[in-house]
Amino acid sequence: MDIGIIGGSGYTGGELMRLLSYHPEAAIKAVTSRSRKGQKVSDTHPHLRKICDMEFEDLQPEEVASRCDIVFTAVPHGTAMQVVPALLDAGVKVVDLSADYRLKTDVFEKTYKMKHIDPRKAIYGIPELHPEIPSQQFIANPGCYPTGASLAAAPLAKAGLIERVVFDSKSGVSGAGVEPSEVSHYPNMAENIQAYKLTTHRHRAEIFQELTRLDGGLKSICFTPHVIPSVRGILTTAHIFVKKELSEEDVSKIYNDFYKDRPFIRLIKGIPMLGNVRGSNFCDIGFEIDKGNDRIVVISAIDNLVKGASGQAIQNMNLMFGLPETTGLWHPGLAP
Amino acid sequence: MDIGIIGGSGYTGGELMRLLSYHPEAAIKAVTSRSRKGQKVSDTHPHLRKICDMEFEDLQPEEVASRCDIVFTAVPHGTAMQVVPALLDAGVKVVDLSADYRLKTDVFEKTYKMKHIDPRKAIYGIPELHPEIPSQQFIANPGCYPTGASLAAAPLAKAGLIERVVFDSKSGVSGAGVEPSEVSHYPNMAENIQAYKLTTHRHRAEIFQELTRLDGGLKSICFTPHVIPSVRGILTTAHIFVKKELSEEDVSKIYNDFYKDRPFIRLIKGIPMLGNVRGSNFCDIGFEIDKGNDRIVVISAIDNLVKGASGQAIQNMNLMFGLPETTGLWHPGLAP
Amino acid sequence: MDIGIIGGSGYTGGELMRLLSYHPEAAIKAVTSRSRKGQKVSDTHPHLRKICDMEFEDLQPEEVASRCDIVFTAVPHGTAMQVVPALLDAGVKVVDLSADYRLKTDVFEKTYKMKHIDPRKAIYGIPELHPEIPSQQFIANPGCYPTGASLAAAPLAKAGLIERVVFDSKSGVSGAGVEPSEVSHYPNMAENIQAYKLTTHRHRAEIFQELTRLDGGLKSICFTPHVIPSVRGILTTAHIFVKKELSEEDVSKIYNDFYKDRPFIRLIKGIPMLGNVRGSNFCDIGFEIDKGNDRIVVISAIDNLVKGASGQAIQNMNLMFGLPETTGLWHPGLAP
Amino acid sequence: MDIGIIGGSGYTGGELMRLLSYHPEAAIKAVTSRSRKGQKVSDTHPHLRKICDMEFEDLQPEEVASRCDIVFTAVPHGTAMQVVPALLDAGVKVVDLSADYRLKTDVFEKTYKMKHIDPRKAIYGIPELHPEIPSQQFIANPGCYPTGASLAAAPLAKAGLIERVVFDSKSGVSGAGVEPSEVSHYPNMAENIQAYKLTTHRHRAEIFQELTRLDGGLKSICFTPHVIPSVRGILTTAHIFVKKELSEEDVSKIYNDFYKDRPFIRLIKGIPMLGNVRGSNFCDIGFEIDKGNDRIVVISAIDNLVKGASGQAIQNMNLMFGLPETTGLWHPGLAP
Repeated sequence: MDIGIIGGSGYTGGELMRLLSYHPEAAIKAVTSRSRKGQKVSDTHPHLRKICDMEFEDLQPEEVASRCDIVFTAVPHGTAMQVVPALLDAGVKVVDLSADYRLKTDVFEKTYKMKHIDPRKAIYGIPELHPEIPSQQFIANPGCYPTGASLAAAPLAKAGLIERVVFDSKSGVSGAGVEPSEVSHYPNMAENIQAYKLTTHRHRAEIFQELTRLDGGLKSICFTPHVIPSVRGILTTAHIFVKKELSEEDVSKIYNDFYKDRPFIRLIKGIPMLGNVRGSNFCDIGFEIDKGNDRIVVISAIDNLVKGASGQAIQNMNLMFGLPETTGLWHPGLAP
Repeated sequence: MDIGIIGGSGYTGGELMRLLSYHPEAAIKAVTSRSRKGQKVSDTHPHLRKICDMEFEDLQPEEVASRCDIVFTAVPHGTAMQVVPALLDAGVKVVDLSADYRLKTDVFEKTYKMKHIDPRKAIYGIPELHPEIPSQQFIANPGCYPTGASLAAAPLAKAGLIERVVFDSKSGVSGAGVEPSEVSHYPNMAENIQAYKLTTHRHRAEIFQELTRLDGGLKSICFTPHVIPSVRGILTTAHIFVKKELSEEDVSKIYNDFYKDRPFIRLIKGIPMLGNVRGSNFCDIGFEIDKGNDRIVVISAIDNLVKGASGQAIQNMNLMFGLPETTGLWHPGLAP
Repeated sequence: MDIGIIGGSGYTGGELMRLLSYHPEAAIKAVTSRSRKGQKVSDTHPHLRKICDMEFEDLQPEEVASRCDIVFTAVPHGTAMQVVPALLDAGVKVVDLSADYRLKTDVFEKTYKMKHIDPRKAIYGIPELHPEIPSQQFIANPGCYPTGASLAAAPLAKAGLIERVVFDSKSGVSGAGVEPSEVSHYPNMAENIQAYKLTTHRHRAEIFQELTRLDGGLKSICFTPHVIPSVRGILTTAHIFVKKELSEEDVSKIYNDFYKDRPFIRLIKGIPMLGNVRGSNFCDIGFEIDKGNDRIVVISAIDNLVKGASGQAIQNMNLMFGLPETTGLWHPGLAP
Repeated sequence: MDIGIIGGSGYTGGELMRLLSYHPEAAIKAVTSRSRKGQKVSDTHPHLRKICDMEFEDLQPEEVASRCDIVFTAVPHGTAMQVVPALLDAGVKVVDLSADYRLKTDVFEKTYKMKHIDPRKAIYGIPELHPEIPSQQFIANPGCYPTGASLAAAPLAKAGLIERVVFDSKSGVSGAGVEPSEVSHYPNMAENIQAYKLTTHRHRAEIFQELTRLDGGLKSICFTPHVIPSVRGILTTAHIFVKKELSEEDVSKIYNDFYKDRPFIRLIKGIPMLGNVRGSNFCDIGFEIDKGNDRIVVISAIDNLVKGASGQAIQNMNLMFGLPETTGLWHPGLAP
């Protein structure tokens, strides 16, 4: 497969190149960056020295499409909608890592407070929840928080057992992107934890969309994110209040059945930790039952840049091309 | 005041000495440690070099009492109950930093799975919730999590407005004590966050006791702790589901009224962060209303070793001796 | 003493206010910031909430001088020289925390590549090396690296024993200031260590000045700085090649004699660590002799924002006013 | 190739399994651990869940040899010498990751203060410095510090240009191993840097051996290690004092010629950082000339567990079997 990356200077762009370096069927043919045109990719991503000898180009979508079978758009929301139509018209497959096509148009416009110029439907790209991905030309790759949260709660949602859920999520700082900011300033972040957008984070709309798709009656979905002093990873603590008492065996069975044959989900006894999924596409899930409080605490751990972004995008690509979803992605986490 | 510290080799013992070095009315007369008898205190706590020239002694409670007006017991639970009776019999005041006297005896025995040999009643030492402290001889100093959690929710509990509350707490590693362990091993903790005892942490019993004291009808109190890669601090994210819709003004008024004239509570617009309370006895509290979810997210930030342990112990001491509670404790946090 | 701070929005300005809150003889009468005029100081420095209720003002130096006995200038280099003359003319004492007056004018101009508009002589403010501070009106407060490096090597330099010295210094990120940057971006700094300006850091000129003042024949002084994933602190590893073999007793005696009666120097057996001086004005020094390599490894540990900046500035202030240098500064480090 | 790992429960054992999971020609046939016999490997190394389904066994060396073509011994020093002879006698290839065979026997006994029971000669396994590796049955895999230090200085040593060198090395905490200790205790290590064994670290003997092999006249080799708050990586700051003035071009040429065709050495303009080699087998090297001080500062960055241990072991294995040394190791670093 010949691959193009539109917007290669950020973390998700760099991560696509890192992960694709392991892929036996993939060859990157174009990486764009307007501001870094003509510079070596490895000047921006020095960990890729000797691995990737390409230069950034400043190309029109049509030019990228002409060289490629599939294009990843790793650009900010609002920008993707300006390049995706031309790519799709050119007949290539597209995985969009921005937020532009994840939500229904009206929800998008309300959530992101901008007009959508290309109100097109895309499949939401969590393969474990969307069996229809293999036949698609176009996938909207999910947000990082929604991936961790939806995977933690989906089996119980599907079973119609959730009364109310509170997602208390903890993300690594890389989720805030490559640009230095107040939040990412080391003296602000070290030895700290920053709760933010306590009730209004935009990713809540994606979580809501995915879980209500599984259980139309589910109403009470709360989401509060935090940034922790870690570079990578999202740990989601899902406080799930259930409609009836469930035993540990009940819950195990529900999760095992739901995620049967899904290679990247690792259901574990015990509590997932970020270190075990770092750099990998795995999502580790564990749980404990709060007897007497009708609560199940489900913990999921992902790498926000892999399963939460670029790894999942490649997983989607594999499926779109009829490959095993694990192709080029079957790596252990980097621990310690 | 002449002061004794029983168990001075751990973090809370060291923190008592650090904080008391600022206190204008306090003189430490004895610091005990069985295992370090005869060693300089500053060999164990090198940050106290030149500040504290004492040596650890191995003393009977009676001997400590004979030199002191007040004794802090900073020993493990199960040990405090072996020394407190003799101290109280000797007529000195006591602040016990262990868990031994925080709960009703039957709850203690069930929670800590041990027999209590001294089933005595003590006042639970959160001064902001217990106006009766000034007249006491004996105070059970609260746990770190319960301090942060109870202070975050108490005003709404007192107002009878809480339907259900989920405390998702994030603690620094110093809460696990001075002894190296799997959890505190740097490669396990760095770039990580460890959820643990998802539904069964013993501190839940203290939180339950304090909040139901304020609202007898409150039943659903959930608590899940995490350790974050930070040395000090507890950030408590209190997801409070309320019985009726409240405006921002309503909530502000409830908190302002409740904490009027309480010097160590700082109610802020915005979101508290650990860095601002590090090393200080302040508890910063902020909140946001989740419109449409009958949820209020209250965030509290404390230093687990100060307001969550030794600082609160000194605050209690001040009150027990009729001093302003801020005496020797009115310090800013260490930021950045 | 009535105190003014010109430039109060950065880390050294905030640290002056934090430390002065402990000082029994000091009252802050003015804090300036052009860009934050009218804002509360505690909005910029939230750890000072309830401790400092002042607002930033935008004042001319003369106005600041009219309210104060002493003024700290905590502004960037190049700016201090624009305000210091008016302050001195107004008769107040001044401690300048910038680099403007630390070096001889010609060395300054060469090192900082700018013209000096006020070529005035100031005393270099390391009290342990400059007994003439008590009588001064004007002190140039030293750089952070030069404080740690000079204190580590001064006794051996004074003894004329140094053949060559390599200072390999490791600084916390707060040394890079309050503004977010590539270096301070959490994902760049965490799990990393950044060597920079391997041979050309401007602070080398200060180290050179101080050590050659003690030993005019000393020529080979090398300095290489690094930033480590820590907020505060500078650990200086001084690899000192000596002219003749020295025993441990020899070196101990040289350091003990040199630093006799200097309260903030703690000579220790063993190896200093940042944690023990964090937040304090202490400088811990230890050493080991490399038998057979004519090398002595001296380690010094300071808090870059305290002994390396604002604490030392207050120590200088105390001496300029005839107070004990420890007044308001006799605090233990914050450990753990 | 069929592979055995003796001692699979520590970091280097885990890292061998992680890295071998990428190797197209390698199959692990045995992993031993006496204390964890019968337990799943992935219980100890949870990042390997689904990647490695083996169990630890408690096997005699002969049994391991009977299943394998090559055996890695990842056991403590002193233990390797008890199993290596039997392995070699059985005819399999061996890469020993312990210190037992890295030094000449007399130097080993003096340095490690123990009797050597198998005084056998092995080739020291830095492939970039030892072209004789391809024909060997037995390789002593180097220490982590010596790998970073030797690679930084070897070209200048070979050229006979070094007068004196000071290696000031900074290692991640994983170098201290998997067992919790005072040093690795998070509150001791976070926001800190710990210098240790300032002049007497045992790895100095390896560095000395390698550099004097290249330049018999080189006498003054100093080494001081530090532990930094990072899990992985060693940054070596080599302060190299040279015999004659060298231009940037001179030094570039010396390094480029020396490391021509060595795939894992990346000579860079600028300063190496740990993040760029994390998880990879690369060694990044950069330098700067200190004009007027006859000093060249060379910086090398490696991952201590990969190029400093298990990755280099696999690189050696590849060469011992006639494979390209990059086989299964040609991975980018994990950044950010």
